[in-house]
Amino acid sequence: MHILSSIMVMMAVVMCVPAAADAVTHKLEWEWFLATGFATGTVGVTGMLATRTAEPIRLSLREGFLLTCLGWLVVAFVGALPFLALGISLTDAVFESLSALTTTGSTVLTGLDNLPPGTLLWRALLQWVGGIGILAVAILLLPLLRVGGMQVFRIESSDTSDLRLPNFAKTITGLMSLYVLLTVLCALLYEALGMTIFDAITHAMTTVSSGGFSTHDASFGYFENPALHWVAIVFMIVGALPFLLMLRAVYGSPRDLTRDQQVRGFLGFLAVTSVVMAFGLMHESGLPFFEALTLTTFNITSIVTTTGYASADYTTWGFGFIGVFLVLMFVGGCSGSTAGGVKIYRFQLLVVVVRAHIRQLVSPNRLIPLRYNGRALAPDVPVSVLAFLAVFVATIASITAILMMLGLDLVTAYSATVTAISNVGPGLGPVVGPAGNFQPLPDEAKWLLAFAMLAGRLEVLALLVVLDPDFWRN
Amino acid sequence: MHILSSIMVMMAVVMCVPAAADAVTHKLEWEWFLATGFATGTVGVTGMLATRTAEPIRLSLREGFLLTCLGWLVVAFVGALPFLALGISLTDAVFESLSALTTTGSTVLTGLDNLPPGTLLWRALLQWVGGIGILAVAILLLPLLRVGGMQVFRIESSDTSDLRLPNFAKTITGLMSLYVLLTVLCALLYEALGMTIFDAITHAMTTVSSGGFSTHDASFGYFENPALHWVAIVFMIVGALPFLLMLRAVYGSPRDLTRDQQVRGFLGFLAVTSVVMAFGLMHESGLPFFEALTLTTFNITSIVTTTGYASADYTTWGFGFIGVFLVLMFVGGCSGSTAGGVKIYRFQLLVVVVRAHIRQLVSPNRLIPLRYNGRALAPDVPVSVLAFLAVFVATIASITAILMMLGLDLVTAYSATVTAISNVGPGLGPVVGPAGNFQPLPDEAKWLLAFAMLAGRLEVLALLVVLDPDFWRN
Repeated sequence: MHILSSIMVMMAVVMCVPAAADAVTHKLEWEWFLATGFATGTVGVTGMLATRTAEPIRLSLREGFLLTCLGWLVVAFVGALPFLALGISLTDAVFESLSALTTTGSTVLTGLDNLPPGTLLWRALLQWVGGIGILAVAILLLPLLRVGGMQVFRIESSDTSDLRLPNFAKTITGLMSLYVLLTVLCALLYEALGMTIFDAITHAMTTVSSGGFSTHDASFGYFENPALHWVAIVFMIVGALPFLLMLRAVYGSPRDLTRDQQVRGFLGFLAVTSVVMAFGLMHESGLPFFEALTLTTFNITSIVTTTGYASADYTTWGFGFIGVFLVLMFVGGCSGSTAGGVKIYRFQLLVVVVRAHIRQLVSPNRLIPLRYNGRALAPDVPVSVLAFLAVFVATIASITAILMMLGLDLVTAYSATVTAISNVGPGLGPVVGPAGNFQPLPDEAKWLLAFAMLAGRLEVLALLVVLDPDFWRN
Repeated sequence: MHILSSIMVMMAVVMCVPAAADAVTHKLEWEWFLATGFATGTVGVTGMLATRTAEPIRLSLREGFLLTCLGWLVVAFVGALPFLALGISLTDAVFESLSALTTTGSTVLTGLDNLPPGTLLWRALLQWVGGIGILAVAILLLPLLRVGGMQVFRIESSDTSDLRLPNFAKTITGLMSLYVLLTVLCALLYEALGMTIFDAITHAMTTVSSGGFSTHDASFGYFENPALHWVAIVFMIVGALPFLLMLRAVYGSPRDLTRDQQVRGFLGFLAVTSVVMAFGLMHESGLPFFEALTLTTFNITSIVTTTGYASADYTTWGFGFIGVFLVLMFVGGCSGSTAGGVKIYRFQLLVVVVRAHIRQLVSPNRLIPLRYNGRALAPDVPVSVLAFLAVFVATIASITAILMMLGLDLVTAYSATVTAISNVGPGLGPVVGPAGNFQPLPDEAKWLLAFAMLAGRLEVLALLVVLDPDFWRN
């Protein structure tokens, strides 16, 4: 309760930023931001005072899981309050808030270009804060909780010593500084290449957090300078790289980053897919190579890093491209980044585990060592990774079927589910596709998709743990 | 080589049946059947003589895998020969043959009602023979090869003693007798309820084998008597039950069958889904309850047992039903039956493994025993089952993407892939749906789907083993 209250206080402070922005531009909405900020802050401070204790807080594993889930829910609810000023329903407000905080980027708002700057800034801020939350959870918490094979990264994040407070705090400070630095750098480059200051700041926030909210209905396609697209590509990639390894690179060990098996696999996959698809698009549309390459690289990077910007409606490129994009929506970035999805290392581990498994079938007595990134795998990793994949797919199948019962067609239901659980943003088809909007979906579908976003962000298993009746027994 | 040759001789003998049928009805085609039968027989006998040996044949694990894969390929090629008489392409002939032998039931032939009886009989015979092949592989071979968690059934199939020849032969004889008995019983009931003798025999063959080929373009919808539909429901279910347990029930231990966790889960799932969907269909279409129940039970049973008959075009019932059918295509029957798909026991094991896994996350030091069907699970079962599921899904995703690159739309590509790898038969959409036909697909798509059928029949992993370069070293 104490931690949740302090999160609310933090959120109240953040709310002052859009309040100030709206006040400066003389929009009336700033009073609403201040009011919700004040209310949130009051509840938070009261909660903190009521639960304060002299001893340092120690969390059990069970409390760790519970806090992770509740933390997202509390922030999502608080984050939804300012949207109510737009006169939209509670469902839409919570959907938009969760979509922002989980850095998914699906939106129910239309006419973005005409919204007050405070609201646009709030959307960007929520994604940016969400990105920090994800980094904290993905780097510090989930490896400790051993969720979905993330224990592979447990040793790395604590290899100088164990995770006692001094190191813990130092790591957090380092990560935060790097995150702020990257955002500032991205914003400066955006501004230098022609964006307004407001667009530069909001887009930098949603690029580095792999969020994907834009201030324009045309998303990133609003900006015509190809240099801007390539800057976005670079920072989307940076946002999907393992932040701990980038931190180490800054502190003088760039080799940890450049030799990492996951990073190499990720960059290689992006490069090969973008170039191959560029040739396909040239062949299909007759565009010159560089233009086609910019289009494919931008949109593929956007999907794979689970950012979700669109620079064109790629669903009109033909069935082959749609098929590829459907698969790309699963992939995801690297672990310990702001990206969602299945993530590269799980595919690499899947290949390692399955190859060893089918060789074991032929030679049952042969000892086949499981290695990844130059290290032997702990014995619990195979089941951990495979269970994640099975639960991930089963969740997609169930939610797709329920959405279809709510009246959605297959393409919409399926792509909306995948885009939500992978925290990508746009789906496929006229409604949820890159040129569409989630607004027309029925309320039940919006709640279900919001649930899927949260499940994806918590690597599904961490949510399942809390939903298991056994968890609540004594 | 010796075993493959003897399989060819067997196929040559089977070819004489449609030859006789055509000769009796004075169709010219019988000479072609006799010619291909003679050619196949000659090659087979030559092969057998060339490779005969005085010692009994002993297979290594590696040879077991290779024989399983090659066996299907040889039979598929031989089975395709008679179709060439219809003047169709080699691609179509091999597709039809593999679809039959894997008891999938997707067809490229139209105007079934006007085809010569020899060809219709040949399609039914291939499915019937395929059913025997599947029983042999699924009950006797795959559990020994420990593929996809099938080692769970290893102890059961050999619990009186180890699998030396006398028991082996006795089991095969028992299974064959049961299979023939069930087919005859089914044919007699079909005939008594109004089918012609020819329809009764061919449909009995494709019901018990969970094949789904019909002699009419309207599939089972051709027959109007609801009693026929309920007889088909019963025998489709019987074909999807574990044959070993049925054999034991015949020999006096019916409890082994009725108390089996997989059998109970399977029947319970079918009953609940059919009744719930019947209410949905009543609500949607205004049909009386019993009529709706007959429709839903028939088509759900047909999909879940991976038979593939259709008594109506259920793709016109609405998006909700399509969503449910898409999920149902994955389910499959019980292990050790003629059914394909993921199979009930894997879902049950998935629940057992995942539930234990998420509890282990909260209490890392707690000892959580894994139990299924009243027995403790062997330590290699979780990875085995989960690896199967991961590879199954990855194969579906890859094939769907490739099919879309060949120009198919998402619904067609995806449902055709799932229906092929699950050995169901019909997909969704106008082309591959229950009212459509696989004929218009491009040749590459047909070969890919034929590959998927074979992969599904070999539980994917058994095929992967042979495709691994490591398999061929030394």
